[in-house]
Amino acid sequence: MRRVEIYDTTLRDGAQAEDISLSLDDKVSIVSKLDQLGVHFIEAGWPGANPKDDKLFARLRQMHPKNATILAFCSTCRPGQTPENDRLIKAVLNARPQGVTIFGKTWDIHVSGQGGLGCTLEENVRMIRDTVAFLKTHYPMVIFDAEHFFDGFRANSEYALAAVKAASLGGADRVVLCDTNGGSLPDYIAATVGRVKATITSPIGIHCHNDSELAVANSLSAVQAGAVQVHGTINGVGERCGNANLCSIIPTLSLKLGCETIPRENLGMLSEISRFFDDIANLSHDKHQPYVGEAAFAHKGGVHVSAVMGDPSTYEHIDPSLVGNQRKVLVSEHSGKSNIIYKAREFNIDLSRDDATAAEIVKSIKDLEDCGFQFEGADASLELLMKKAMGEHMRFFKLKGFRVNTERRSDDTDPVSEATIMIEVDGNVEHTAALGNGPVNALDRALRKALSKFYPSIEEVQLLDYKVRVISSRKGTESVVRVLIESGDRKDHWSTVGVSSNILEASWMALVDSMDYKLYKDSMKARARHKNR
Amino acid sequence: MRRVEIYDTTLRDGAQAEDISLSLDDKVSIVSKLDQLGVHFIEAGWPGANPKDDKLFARLRQMHPKNATILAFCSTCRPGQTPENDRLIKAVLNARPQGVTIFGKTWDIHVSGQGGLGCTLEENVRMIRDTVAFLKTHYPMVIFDAEHFFDGFRANSEYALAAVKAASLGGADRVVLCDTNGGSLPDYIAATVGRVKATITSPIGIHCHNDSELAVANSLSAVQAGAVQVHGTINGVGERCGNANLCSIIPTLSLKLGCETIPRENLGMLSEISRFFDDIANLSHDKHQPYVGEAAFAHKGGVHVSAVMGDPSTYEHIDPSLVGNQRKVLVSEHSGKSNIIYKAREFNIDLSRDDATAAEIVKSIKDLEDCGFQFEGADASLELLMKKAMGEHMRFFKLKGFRVNTERRSDDTDPVSEATIMIEVDGNVEHTAALGNGPVNALDRALRKALSKFYPSIEEVQLLDYKVRVISSRKGTESVVRVLIESGDRKDHWSTVGVSSNILEASWMALVDSMDYKLYKDSMKARARHKNR
Repeated sequence: MRRVEIYDTTLRDGAQAEDISLSLDDKVSIVSKLDQLGVHFIEAGWPGANPKDDKLFARLRQMHPKNATILAFCSTCRPGQTPENDRLIKAVLNARPQGVTIFGKTWDIHVSGQGGLGCTLEENVRMIRDTVAFLKTHYPMVIFDAEHFFDGFRANSEYALAAVKAASLGGADRVVLCDTNGGSLPDYIAATVGRVKATITSPIGIHCHNDSELAVANSLSAVQAGAVQVHGTINGVGERCGNANLCSIIPTLSLKLGCETIPRENLGMLSEISRFFDDIANLSHDKHQPYVGEAAFAHKGGVHVSAVMGDPSTYEHIDPSLVGNQRKVLVSEHSGKSNIIYKAREFNIDLSRDDATAAEIVKSIKDLEDCGFQFEGADASLELLMKKAMGEHMRFFKLKGFRVNTERRSDDTDPVSEATIMIEVDGNVEHTAALGNGPVNALDRALRKALSKFYPSIEEVQLLDYKVRVISSRKGTESVVRVLIESGDRKDHWSTVGVSSNILEASWMALVDSMDYKLYKDSMKARARHKNR
Repeated sequence: MRRVEIYDTTLRDGAQAEDISLSLDDKVSIVSKLDQLGVHFIEAGWPGANPKDDKLFARLRQMHPKNATILAFCSTCRPGQTPENDRLIKAVLNARPQGVTIFGKTWDIHVSGQGGLGCTLEENVRMIRDTVAFLKTHYPMVIFDAEHFFDGFRANSEYALAAVKAASLGGADRVVLCDTNGGSLPDYIAATVGRVKATITSPIGIHCHNDSELAVANSLSAVQAGAVQVHGTINGVGERCGNANLCSIIPTLSLKLGCETIPRENLGMLSEISRFFDDIANLSHDKHQPYVGEAAFAHKGGVHVSAVMGDPSTYEHIDPSLVGNQRKVLVSEHSGKSNIIYKAREFNIDLSRDDATAAEIVKSIKDLEDCGFQFEGADASLELLMKKAMGEHMRFFKLKGFRVNTERRSDDTDPVSEATIMIEVDGNVEHTAALGNGPVNALDRALRKALSKFYPSIEEVQLLDYKVRVISSRKGTESVVRVLIESGDRKDHWSTVGVSSNILEASWMALVDSMDYKLYKDSMKARARHKNR
C-alpha cells in the first residue's frame, strides 16, 4: 500500500487566519491530539519570529511525541548573509526542534521585483542551497517549502526549477511545492508535480490553499502525480480561504485511494479532533463540513429516511463510523412520520406509524419551527415535547413570577445583575434571589437556588454551554433570538432550546426545559429502582 | 469561446439544507437576483409535492425573466402508470413553468432493491423514456436528472447507461449525471462523463454534492470531459455537506478556463448575491468563502501587507474587483505598523511610520483583542479608538447610571423589559425611561431618547443588525460575549463592537460607540460647512 505522509501546519500557517488566536496551553494540547491521531509531522511554529513560539518549543521538548516529528519553521538566510550568522536560524537551533522546514522564494518577481527580496536571482539560489545544507548538518529531517512555486513555475519555469534544484542539491529531505495564492487548478498541479519529479531527486510534498475551493482536489491530484507528503490544517483553517483540509484529505486518501496515511484505526478520531479544535479555538463548528460535520450524514426528507433505515450504503458515500461520525435523522419542517418514529425509538417512546399522536407531533414541531425553533441541536427539548404529546407528566414546578434587574451607577463602575424568582411546587411557594454575571446568569442561579429546595439533585446540574443566535437580525436589537443550552450532570449531557424576541425569555425557556429534563430523568430512575424491588 | 450553461438549484436542492427555510417572497426575490446575474436555468421548485411551490410558480408566471428559463422539478411517473395520469406530473403542467427537469433512478438497487421503487429494471427504463417523451410534447426544454448516476455506473454500468439512453431516446434536451451521495473523485467523474458522451446523443450536464469536499473540482472535471451544463447552488448550500458552489464554479470557468458562463460584466455581482442570499436565508456569511468571502482577499502579516501595497498580483490569484469583492487589510494581533497606517489612511488620519502613536495604537489593539475584541468587523469602533489615541475629542455624553428591569408575573404572561437612564451633556442632566422588547432593546431605546434631547440627529440612526457571539462558551451562562452592532443613517453604515461577561454591558459599549460615531461624523460635517463659508 502506498504511504503518504501527513504534515500538519495548523499551529503555524493555520493560525494565520484572522479569527484564530491560541494560547500556549491550547497549542500544547493540539500537538498532543495530533500526535495521538498519528500525523507524521507537526509544524509547531516559527521560533524567533514569535516569542510565544519560543515558549512553545520549550514545552514541547518535554513532551516526547509517540508518532509525530515536531518541526520548526523559518526562512532562508538573508541576502549577503550566511546561515551561521542569521538571527532567526540561531533561534531555530536554540528551540531544539526535531527537524526544520525552511521556506524560500521560487517566483522570480518575489526575488528581484518590487517589494521582493532585493537581491539577484543567483543570490537567492545560493541562500536556499546554503541554508538547507547548513541545517542538514544539525537535523535528520530538513524540508524545503518552495513558496509560490506554482505561480513561479508559470511565470519562469526555468528559475523555479533552479530554486528547487538548489534545495535538493543542498540535501533537502523533502521539497514541498506550495500553491501559496491558491489559484491553481488540479490539471496544472499534476503536470507541474510531474515536471519537478523528473528534475530533482528529493521526494516531493504539496502545500495548497483554498482560494479557488480546490485545495483538497489539488492535494489529491499532486499525490496521484507522485507527491509523498501532504500539508494541511485541521478543518482547513488558514488565512483568506484557508489551507487544504486534512479532515477531508486523510479519509479520502485512506478510504478511497488506498493509501496508508495515519493508522487505519485512528481514522475514527477525526470527527472528535475536528470538533475539539473548533472548541479550543472558539470557532463554531461547521455542521456541513465533509466527513466530520454534524450534518455530514444527516437525512431529512421522509421518503429518503425510510430508504436509509433499509440500506444506509445506498445513501451514504462511506460508513460514518469510520471517521467517528454518526448518522443523524433530522426532525424538521420537511420531516415525514419516518423521522419522528426513528427519533421516538431513540427516546424509547412507543409510537407507531398509524398513531394520531405522531401526526400531532409533526404538526407541533412544524409550528414551533415557523417561530424559529430548531430541534436538530436540542434533543432534550424534543424528547420533552414528544412525552408531553403522549400525555406524560413533565412539569415539575410552576412559575409565579421573576424579575431581573441590571444596574450601572456611573460611567466607570461595572454593572450588577440581580434576579428574584417565585416558584410553586405542590402548593409550596419558594421566593428567592441571586446575583449574577449578567441578567441571564442571575436568572439561572436564582432558578436553581429555588428549585434545589424541593429537588436537591438540581445542584448536580452544570451549564456547559450557552449559545445565542440572532435569527432574524434585520431589526436591530428587536431581533428574535434562539438560545441553545447544553447541560450535564455526573452521567449525562443534554441540550435544550428557547426562542423569543426577548433574550431573557428565550434563555428562560431553555433553562426550564433543562431543569425539567433533569427532574424527569431522575424520576424515571426512581421508578425503575422501585420496580426492581 | 466554449459556452457552459449555469443551472441554479438553490431553491430546490439547496433548500433541502437543514438550516434553510425560505418564504415565498424570499424565493421570488432570489429568482429575480439570479435572473439579473444571468444564469441560464433556475430550478424553482417541485409543484404538487410542496404547496408553497405551487404559489411560487403562480408568482413567477408574472415575472418575465430576462435571461433565465424557469424550470419545475418532478419525478418520473410511478411504476405501472402512464405520465398522463400521474398526479404530480399534472401538477407540473398546471404550474406552467418554462421547462421541466425530471429525475429518475439509474442505480439498479434503487429500482429493484430493498426500499427502492419496487418494480423491474425494464419498467423503470420504460418510465424514464415515456415521461421524457410525454413532457417533450409540452415543453421546449426537458432535462433528465440521472439520480445516483456515478454510484449506479460503478455498480452496474450497463444498466446505468440503459437508463440514460432511455432519456436520450425519449428526447431529453440535456442528460444530467448526478453524484447524489457526493462520494466520487474527479478522475472517475471525467472518465464516466467521457463514456456517457460516447453513448448518447443528448448534451450532458453535471450535478455534484460536496461530501468529499470535491464538488467544485468534480464539476470542473466534468466540464473538461465535455459536460455543457453545471448544476449548483449559491454558496454551495444544500443537504449534508452541500451542493456544488456556483460562486466558485462560475468565476473559475470564466476567468481561468476561458469558458463563457454568465455575461462577463455580471461576474462583479457575485459577492453581492452571495451575501444577499445569506442575509435573506438568515445564515451567517462565511468570511473565508473563496472569491466572495470578506476575508478572501484579506492580508494580515505586516511584511506581506507592505508587499501587497506594492504589487497586488503577486499575492492575489485574481483581482478581487472582478467578482465584486475587495482587498482587506486586517488590523489584529499579527498586525505590523503597515496595517495600522493603511487603515489610518482609509480613515483620513495622518499617521507616519515613525510616529510613536502608531506603536501605541498597535499595543492597545493587541490588549483589547486579548480581552475578546475583534476590530475586523467594527471599523467605526477602530476609527474612534485611533482618533482618541490622536488626542481628538470623542465623547459626547457622560453616563450617570442606568437600570434595566425585566419582569414576568406568571407562567403564562409575556415578560416586560424597562430601562431607566441618566446622562449628562455639558452639565445638563437628562433622566428618562423606555420599554423594550427585551432588556437590550429597552436600553437602546432609553439611550436614544435621552441623547436626542441634546442631539436631535440621533433620531436618524437606525440599528440595522445586532449580533451576539459567545466567545468562551465553556462556562455556561457566565461566558464572555461579543456584541457587534451595525447602524446606519440616511447616508452611511457603520459597525461597532463591545465585549463583556455581561451581555447588557457588551451591548452598551457597542451602542455608545455607535452613537459617538454618529455625533462625531455630524460634528465633522458641521466643521467642514463652517470652513467653506
